[in-house]
Order: sequence, then structure tokens, then C-alpha cells
Amino acid sequence: MAERRPSLQLSEEQQCRIQRLTAAQPTQRIESEGGVTEIWDERQEQFQCAGVVAMRNTIRANGLSLPNYHPTPRLVFIERGQGFIGITFPGCAETYHAHTTQRTRERSEEETQRGSGKDMHQKVHRIRRGDIVAIPAGAAHWCYNDGNEELIAVSINDLNHMSNQLDQKFRAFYLAGGVPQRGQQEQARQKFQNIFRAFDANLMAEAFNVPQEIVQRMQTEEEERGLIVIARERMSFITPEEKQEEWGRQSAADNGMEESFCTMKIRTNIENRREADMYSRQAGKLNVVDRNKLPILKYMDLSAEKGNLYPNALLSPDWAMHGHTIVYVTKGDAKIEVVGHNGQALMNDRVNQGDMFVVPQYYTSSCRAGNNGFEWVAFKTTGWPMRNPVAGYTSVMRAMPLQVLTNIYQISPNQAQGLKMNRGSQSFLLSPGGRQY
Amino acid sequence: MAERRPSLQLSEEQQCRIQRLTAAQPTQRIESEGGVTEIWDERQEQFQCAGVVAMRNTIRANGLSLPNYHPTPRLVFIERGQGFIGITFPGCAETYHAHTTQRTRERSEEETQRGSGKDMHQKVHRIRRGDIVAIPAGAAHWCYNDGNEELIAVSINDLNHMSNQLDQKFRAFYLAGGVPQRGQQEQARQKFQNIFRAFDANLMAEAFNVPQEIVQRMQTEEEERGLIVIARERMSFITPEEKQEEWGRQSAADNGMEESFCTMKIRTNIENRREADMYSRQAGKLNVVDRNKLPILKYMDLSAEKGNLYPNALLSPDWAMHGHTIVYVTKGDAKIEVVGHNGQALMNDRVNQGDMFVVPQYYTSSCRAGNNGFEWVAFKTTGWPMRNPVAGYTSVMRAMPLQVLTNIYQISPNQAQGLKMNRGSQSFLLSPGGRQY
Amino acid sequence: MAERRPSLQLSEEQQCRIQRLTAAQPTQRIESEGGVTEIWDERQEQFQCAGVVAMRNTIRANGLSLPNYHPTPRLVFIERGQGFIGITFPGCAETYHAHTTQRTRERSEEETQRGSGKDMHQKVHRIRRGDIVAIPAGAAHWCYNDGNEELIAVSINDLNHMSNQLDQKFRAFYLAGGVPQRGQQEQARQKFQNIFRAFDANLMAEAFNVPQEIVQRMQTEEEERGLIVIARERMSFITPEEKQEEWGRQSAADNGMEESFCTMKIRTNIENRREADMYSRQAGKLNVVDRNKLPILKYMDLSAEKGNLYPNALLSPDWAMHGHTIVYVTKGDAKIEVVGHNGQALMNDRVNQGDMFVVPQYYTSSCRAGNNGFEWVAFKTTGWPMRNPVAGYTSVMRAMPLQVLTNIYQISPNQAQGLKMNRGSQSFLLSPGGRQY
Repeated sequence: MAERRPSLQLSEEQQCRIQRLTAAQPTQRIESEGGVTEIWDERQEQFQCAGVVAMRNTIRANGLSLPNYHPTPRLVFIERGQGFIGITFPGCAETYHAHTTQRTRERSEEETQRGSGKDMHQKVHRIRRGDIVAIPAGAAHWCYNDGNEELIAVSINDLNHMSNQLDQKFRAFYLAGGVPQRGQQEQARQKFQNIFRAFDANLMAEAFNVPQEIVQRMQTEEEERGLIVIARERMSFITPEEKQEEWGRQSAADNGMEESFCTMKIRTNIENRREADMYSRQAGKLNVVDRNKLPILKYMDLSAEKGNLYPNALLSPDWAMHGHTIVYVTKGDAKIEVVGHNGQALMNDRVNQGDMFVVPQYYTSSCRAGNNGFEWVAFKTTGWPMRNPVAGYTSVMRAMPLQVLTNIYQISPNQAQGLKMNRGSQSFLLSPGGRQY
Repeated sequence: MAERRPSLQLSEEQQCRIQRLTAAQPTQRIESEGGVTEIWDERQEQFQCAGVVAMRNTIRANGLSLPNYHPTPRLVFIERGQGFIGITFPGCAETYHAHTTQRTRERSEEETQRGSGKDMHQKVHRIRRGDIVAIPAGAAHWCYNDGNEELIAVSINDLNHMSNQLDQKFRAFYLAGGVPQRGQQEQARQKFQNIFRAFDANLMAEAFNVPQEIVQRMQTEEEERGLIVIARERMSFITPEEKQEEWGRQSAADNGMEESFCTMKIRTNIENRREADMYSRQAGKLNVVDRNKLPILKYMDLSAEKGNLYPNALLSPDWAMHGHTIVYVTKGDAKIEVVGHNGQALMNDRVNQGDMFVVPQYYTSSCRAGNNGFEWVAFKTTGWPMRNPVAGYTSVMRAMPLQVLTNIYQISPNQAQGLKMNRGSQSFLLSPGGRQY
Repeated sequence: MAERRPSLQLSEEQQCRIQRLTAAQPTQRIESEGGVTEIWDERQEQFQCAGVVAMRNTIRANGLSLPNYHPTPRLVFIERGQGFIGITFPGCAETYHAHTTQRTRERSEEETQRGSGKDMHQKVHRIRRGDIVAIPAGAAHWCYNDGNEELIAVSINDLNHMSNQLDQKFRAFYLAGGVPQRGQQEQARQKFQNIFRAFDANLMAEAFNVPQEIVQRMQTEEEERGLIVIARERMSFITPEEKQEEWGRQSAADNGMEESFCTMKIRTNIENRREADMYSRQAGKLNVVDRNKLPILKYMDLSAEKGNLYPNALLSPDWAMHGHTIVYVTKGDAKIEVVGHNGQALMNDRVNQGDMFVVPQYYTSSCRAGNNGFEWVAFKTTGWPMRNPVAGYTSVMRAMPLQVLTNIYQISPNQAQGLKMNRGSQSFLLSPGGRQY
């Protein structure tokens, strides 16, 4: 809670005085050699209210997303594919060395004659479909698709987080490449900048102790390459074992924040856990990645949930206590209802695969899956998400004494008992229909 | 400190560039079947500066304040009467069951035949005159007056707290009832909304698995009932023992925040402690409820103090280091002097029972009780309140070396010694007159 | 991170949308009897962006800076001279007594006959050239120059810190004195106010139990004295041993924040450590004072660094992950290059002794010392500063696998190896020239 920055801006949107919520598609598209970057319109009132910028990166096979950092914490969901991500922190040990393909191995041998021979670098993480990846503000990172299908990564950037002492405009600082000039990309060019381009080339050459021609390569924003490039050969990396990461998690708790960033786990899978956090045979299942499962989220104050509703199943109406919710539809469709602070319906729409929408903090919303079921990932602007369902086993109705219910609704004890108990042991994942009271 | 949200708003009021502080009375009044809700004008510059909304709820005997939640932490002082409060948290155990009167017992027996028979619900807390009650943001709560006199609860809502990611307008989300239509209540209707009213009744009926007629009862905002209703019969509840609550406090410290909300103490008495935090035989006494006494205040970053000055006794001029102070006069009267950031008197007025006023953080204020003494409760926008008195035993004068005082004020060592020591062992509670140097 | 308040203001400056950074000199000057107060223009866009007010106090020999407090945490660098500083906290023990000169000793004997005789006061700290001193928001403090040369203290006040619930205007509340009337000091008079001046003299006299003539001395803002006065005789104080302070640091970690403020270390030397935090035989050295070295900075969320570059040596281009950087040049000169969020050079200037400039968070900057070397102190708006150098041993280049570099820059493995390794074991302190690859 302490890590969130308030919405004190003046505009009605930023103050969440929203008149209407709508399922949104990305409005901006940047084509690069190795893939596509799509951005949802950050000026839309629902995203202004939540203080986030949402993007979807599609990286082609053998594509490499160029290293960059941003002033905001970013939470990523890997929707499809597999790859590697490198997130660098100054001062962390370079204790990993790359697998090398035959071709690069030969080069390595050349290098052996020159010096150390082995290429040491910081930890590289294997990422796979269903992963949630946490990228702290200011940490440079790159991503490589070593699979055969596209790697699709959907992410939100939290502009309101305390770690951002700049303003609430999204920007990314690139260590290579840049936005292609073609088309009407002026707006995108303002967001994605090569930090080396404006530097004095002499100073750079001296700082790195390399010839100026290499510095020129670093400063170039090549038309056709953009923000994602195609690697010249397939790359492979040794990635740490999960066990080792778990250990890192332990040590983080012991030694405080600084030491931990080097060893801290930055990813976990939200889909393939043996046991779902919430499972209903009739309704579906739900998994959460919060600050308990991925401790780095304590510092980033973000979390995610992945849900799956069976055809026509429901989510109980609920409100979120600790942050906004940004929902991205991964499969199927659903009817969503959101009621705002003025007691009127802000949304009562069907949402489909690829749609994104915001449910503001404290606003009550419900969801009914369509005939083909409904799957989604939700990002939350809190590391400690908490649903307050009004129906089901963990609901506010069950928490209240019967006498209170009979009096507030002027109903009989039997009716109140029904309100509390008719969903039996179902949590907020509710089976369709029901009427078996 | 980390939990407060800054006053970055644009208006002069919100920036605490106040020209004048005035004792204020509530300006808005909402009559309900079971009591009255009074609200101080949140647009008044002193409340804008402090970022709080103040209210006073008067609940008649057998009155039930309808369940609601708000996007702000709320700190409540029970000025009069007694009752029960239920604060619900999702996921906490329902381990309490209600006392039942004869009439409801019969109904319970009916229910026994239907199912579990026992009504299980979350903890209900006994509250009494002099209690400070902490209600976290987003937690639904209800309050019932089981006494014979009115239950009067004065409270402030901290709009600037980090847990509020919406805006700085106060609102309350009701799970039943609503503001009566009669009169010019439009403004109030915007603040107090029934969250169920706009929901699709079919979906609600399906979610709760109850007939639509019950849903209609939940969505109704009945004219005459309002925000507080009269219970059809007297209600009674088993409340946990104090000892158990103390244990909850222990476990909170051990296990972190999540686990603790279920067991955490949410109330403590600020009046009836055997020993006052500060006591002077000649001047009065003072009790504080801060994050040490009520650990939940660490997360809510609020605190309270209850003071009692004997006739004509004084509070040393002081400034508050960690937050704004919102004073509510409970008895007697006093002369209050506040000096602002521009070195001019912002207030030099007599305040009386029922008045409320703000002393902004870092501004120096003093207080002299009237001929009948002075009693007050002060809410503070920090969980760690700290007075910086200029006179008395714990004063900044005593903290400075004699030589510094002689030089800064160009006075003799004897005079400086007087400035430091003439109040002897009196703290910032100062006996009237004095002149015995 | 949690302690910083966001830059949500509206103006372009405050949002760090800076077009140009410039080395700045103080623009305001307040002459007092015992010294001079100089203030950098807080409305300059670079200071608005960083949310700080910078000042330089020059205290003459035997000068005493009058006690005052401010709503912001302040971090001070002692550029020259020596003296004593007293920082008072309410409730901390008065366990120190002053050394007395012959003249005051006689007076003390008089006092002995009156009462306790010994002047007890709170801890006084010895400060010396090269010290970093941390002054929490709201704590009254005074400073005395007992040396023979001027005491020069350069400081920044963090207006955006959470402990400030007022606004983002700097102000200081004085317990004595005031800004001289002469000249065009109106602006300064608004910033520096005597808190006693507007108080009712009767009440003050009663509160302190002293004659009104003494109160008048406290309320006086004498023309010629100003904010810094000359002491009537030389003062001396017993200061706690360093060891004792270290112990205080230990206990702080054990007992939490409140207990610790009384015993917490508030100063440390940033120059004279036996071992620099970063040392290069060819390039220079660098020392850091962060929340690890001075734990009170955890609560103040500020830190400082003192650097020394040899003639023509370089700092690797880098970006700061956790806060803004405010650089004050203490010796020599350097060429500074800063690249902003739009990828253009915001600064490409030579800076000289006495200059101050801001490098906004996440913006990349570099530095090349002039022919006489370069020394600086940098204040940072984070208690946990972290540089992200692009060149050298701890750089982002070394952290990335060779294959990534070859692909992102389209260079050969040999060239990439050069980019990673050509600075050998040099950290971000880089020797001039180099070209020995």
C-alpha cells in the first residue's frame, strides 16, 4: 500500500470520475524487424484512472527485444511462446555464461586466445507461456524468443508507483535501436528513445575504450530494425534452476532489499501450478501471483491473477480493497457489469479475446462467462490484492449476523439464511444457474 | 509516515495556505429512521488542508447503521452510548454466533431443521463511550445501538491516505438502504450510494441463488429508512474477550499484515485507562491512542488523543511533527491560538462543545481552558503523533543549552534558566497562573 | 522508495519536462549579524523537477545559527570549518551538560545556589568539514561555529518527502530572530518566520512562567541580527563519543523508529574514511553516505555522495535508478553531459566550483574532469542510491551476454568483447584516454 502514488491529478479521468468503461483494443502499433509493439491509449479515462500504460509485444521466432528500461515497474504476462529474459542490476555478480552454438563457439575460441575466453554475464531467465514476469523500474532488460512460435507478452506499467519521481507519461529508454521513422510514429518516437544517440561520440569511445565506429553502431536508430530485431543466429543460455531461485527468495527475506535484487525471483508461472488457489468443479479456477508468491512484488506493489470460468459460470459481484484491476481477456467471452461511485452502471458489456478494461478500486463488478467459457489475466495495482465478494463462501453476507441481514433488508430469517448459505461451499467462483435452494 | 498521501493539489486551501481558521459545526444533516448523520463541510479550507472529512453519527436506541465501506481509513471516537460494531474482512473465519432473543431463537429452531442451525458470522465488537475505533479502507461495517441512550460517534476519514487510489472526494458505498429523497439531499446522495441498486437483478439472484424478490429488497432505497434503521427486535452478540484481542495484537506483530487483519484489535478505550499517559494534579490529563497502542493504526497512519484541562489550565504552545491535528470539543470551552507559516495569528478564538477545528502540521498552537475546564478529542493524520512543546519539562527550551538561550534571546543566564526550568516538572499540561519564579 | 512523495504537480517544470539544464548559483542572499544565507532559486525548473530547495549557510567564527525547524527533511554537507549542532527531539533525555568558560562558570555558581546548578540539555554534535548531517523534518536545530574560520554548510531540503503534509513551498519556522527588514527581503521574510512573534505575550509569559520582558526578547526580530547571530562569548560543549553513537545505531535497528531518534546517529564523515567506497589509482575515488551508513536516512529517504576525479578522468555515462541527483561542485571543473527523456542533450556544459545542477532520475549523464580535476558532493532524493553505469566493471554492458551485444549493435563478437571488457577492472571511475585495447 505504501508504494502506490496517489491520483491527485486534476482531470476528471485521473480522478476516476468515469462515466463509462469500455473494452479497449490497442490503438498504437510499432512494426519492427523482429516483431510488433502494440500500446493501449494511455489517455483513455479508464487507464488514466488506473495510472497504467498497457502494451503487448509480439516477438517473432529468433526475435530479440532490444535492451531498455523505464521509470515504472512493469508486470508482464507471457500469453504465448517461450524465450529468455535478461534483467540487469548494477553490482550483481556475472556468474553465468552462455551456451554457444557451433558457430559462436569457434569465435569463443578466438577469444580464448585474447583473454578470459568465457563470456560471463548476469543471470538470464527462461520464460514460458503462463509466466508472470516482474521488471523493476530502471532495470535494463532484453528478451529473446528461442521458440518456433511467436512470443506474446502483455504488460502494464504502473505510472503512479513511488519509484517514479518523474511524471505520469510513459517512456522507455533504449540502449540500442529506436522507433522506425516511417509512418506517423511521432508519438511513439517520443516514448521510445535511444539514450546513446545524443551523447558525444568521443566521450563514449573513451568511456568504453573502443573505436568510434562501434559507438556509431550504438547510436544508430536503424529504420528497418526498430525496437525488436532478428538475431543473426539462434541463441541459447544457461538459466538457473528453480530451486536456486527459491533459495534466493529465502535470502531476500533475511537480508533486506539491496542484497536481494541480485538473487530475487522475477518470474513465476500463474497457470501450471499443481493446485489452483481457488478451484470449483462446477465453476472454474483462479490463480494469484502476489507479494507472497513473488516477493519482489512487495517492492513493486503489483500483482496478477489468472482466471478461468466454465461456460455460463459467474464471478460473484465484488469490490477490490487495495488497488485497481486491469483485465485482459485471453480466451472466450463474458458479460461484465461494473457499478461506479455514483451508483450507476459504468459498464454492462460483452468482452472478447484481446480486450482490456479497468475496474477501479472499490467499484463493484461482476462477470458471467459466455457459452464458451471465459479466461483472463488481471493485473492489479497492489501487491496485496483482496477481493470482497458479496456472494459465496467468503462473502460479506456470510460475515454478517443473520439478525443484521433481516433488519437491513427487511427479510425473514429464512430469507437471510438463504442469502448467506444458498451458494453452499462455493467461493466467489459460482456455478451457472443454481436455483437449488 | 509512509502511508500518508501528499497534499499536492492546486487550490490554496489544499496547500494549507490558510488565512483564517475557525471553529466549525456540521453543515450537512441527513435524517434517517434510526438516527442522524451530520457532516462538516469538506470544502472548508481547514479540512481541505488536512485532507479529511469529518462526520458525526447519532444512532437512536435499537438503531442500526447500515453496512457500508469507504475508500478511506476512518477513525471513530464514541462520544456517548454503547453498541456493537461489525467490521468484515474477506477470508477471516466466521467463528462467532449470535445471542438470540426468545423470538429469534424460535426461528433459529426452524432453521436448525433446514441446515446448520447455528448462525456463524465474523467477530462483532462491543463499543462504549470513550472508545477509539479504527475502520480500514474498503472494509464493510455496520453498527448497532443496544443501549438505552443515543450512540454518538464522531469520526474523520483520511482522504489522503495511500490506500485510496481514487480521488479526494469522500464517498461511502452502502450494501443496503440509501439517502432519503426528501429535501435538498442531492449532494448527500452523491456521497452515499447503494452498490446493488444498479446491478442486473437476474445476475444478483443467480449469484446469491435466491429469488428476485430478495434482490429487490437489497436494491431498494426506501424513503423513510435512510442510512440508519430501527431494528425490528433488540439484537445481542457474543463479543470476544479483551484478552483474546490482546493476543491477536501479538500475533499481528509476528505474522505480518495479512494474517493480522482477522485477529487485529480494532478498538481501545481512550478514557478509562487506569493511568493516563500524561497526568498533572494541577492541570489535567491526556491519553493517546497511537500505532503502539492500536497496531492497526500503523497501517492506517492515524491516531487520536483525548485531553482534559482543568479550569484555566494551559497547553504549552507546540507544533506537531508528523501530521495535521483535527480537534473536536467534547466539553467546556477554551481559547485557542494558532500561528501560521507566515508568522501571523490564524486563530485566536474561543471554542465550545461540539466545535471542530484543524491545526495544520508544523503550525504552532496553544490552548487555555475556560472557567469550566476543557475536554477534547483530537484526531491526527499520523500513526505516530509527536508534540513539540516550547514550554515545560519536555520542551525544546529545556533541550537547548543555557548558553544557546542566552545568546539567541540576549538574556542573562538566570533568565534563560527561568525559561528552561520555571515550569518545574510540569509537562506541556500547565497549571493556571504560576508566577512563582 | 516509500518515503518519497510524487511529482504530480501540473507545471511542466515539476514534471521534469525540462528543455535545458544549467549550472546555477544562489540567487537570494540574506545577510545576518553572524553570517550569510544563500538560496538557489526554487522556481528554477531543475529544482522544481527534483522537488528540492538548496541553500548555503556561511557562519562566521563564533556565529550561532538561530534555532529553527522546517517541514522537510534536510541533508547538509559541511564544506568548510567546524562547529556544533544541536537537534532536539521531544522526549529525548537531557543527559549532557555544557563545558563552561570562566565567565559563565561564575554565573553557573550563582545558579547552583538557586537550584540544580548543572545545565542539562540534549545531545550536541561536533561537526567538521566533510560531514554529512541529517536533520529530520520538524526537529528544531541550531548550529554554532567554534572554529576560527568560516563554517560553510550546503544543504538541500526535500519538499516532496512524505513527512511534509503541507505544500511544496519551502519555509523555516524560527524560535528566535527573523529576517532583517532592510533591502528587498520580502520573499525571504515569507520563508523565515519567528513562530513566537504573533503569540499573545500574556499567554507566553504564563506558559513559561517568566516575566513578559523575556517573552518580548523571544518575539523580537531585531534588524541587525537576522538568522545568524554572534555569540557573546565562546561556547563549548561536551559531545558524545563516536562509539556511543555507533551503539545508538545498533539499538535503532532493534527497537524501531521512535526509540531510536533519541540515540540515532545524525552525522558521518563522507571524506575521511580510511577506505573509499570506490577507489581507482588512475581515476579518483568516491564515497557514499546512504541508509546503510547512516540509518536515519532510511526514514528521510535521502543520501549523498562525495566524488573526486583526477585531471581528465571520466565518470561512465549512467542513470540513477532511485531518485534525482543534485550536484554541487566543491573544487575544480568538469564537462557534464545529460541526455533527457526525448533523447536530446539537456546539458553539455562546463561546471565550476560553487555551481549546482540537477540530473533527473533515469536520465543518462556523464562527466569528464577538467585539467585540474573535479570534486563534488551530490545529494540524492533516495536513501538507497544506485548508479547504472553503461561502461566499466559494473556496467550494463558487462551484465549482458556477448551474443546479445553482437545482435543489438550488429557488431562482431570481438567488438562486443571490447565493449564489455576494454575498461578491465575499472568501475565507473574511468582513467583518461585509455585506447589500450
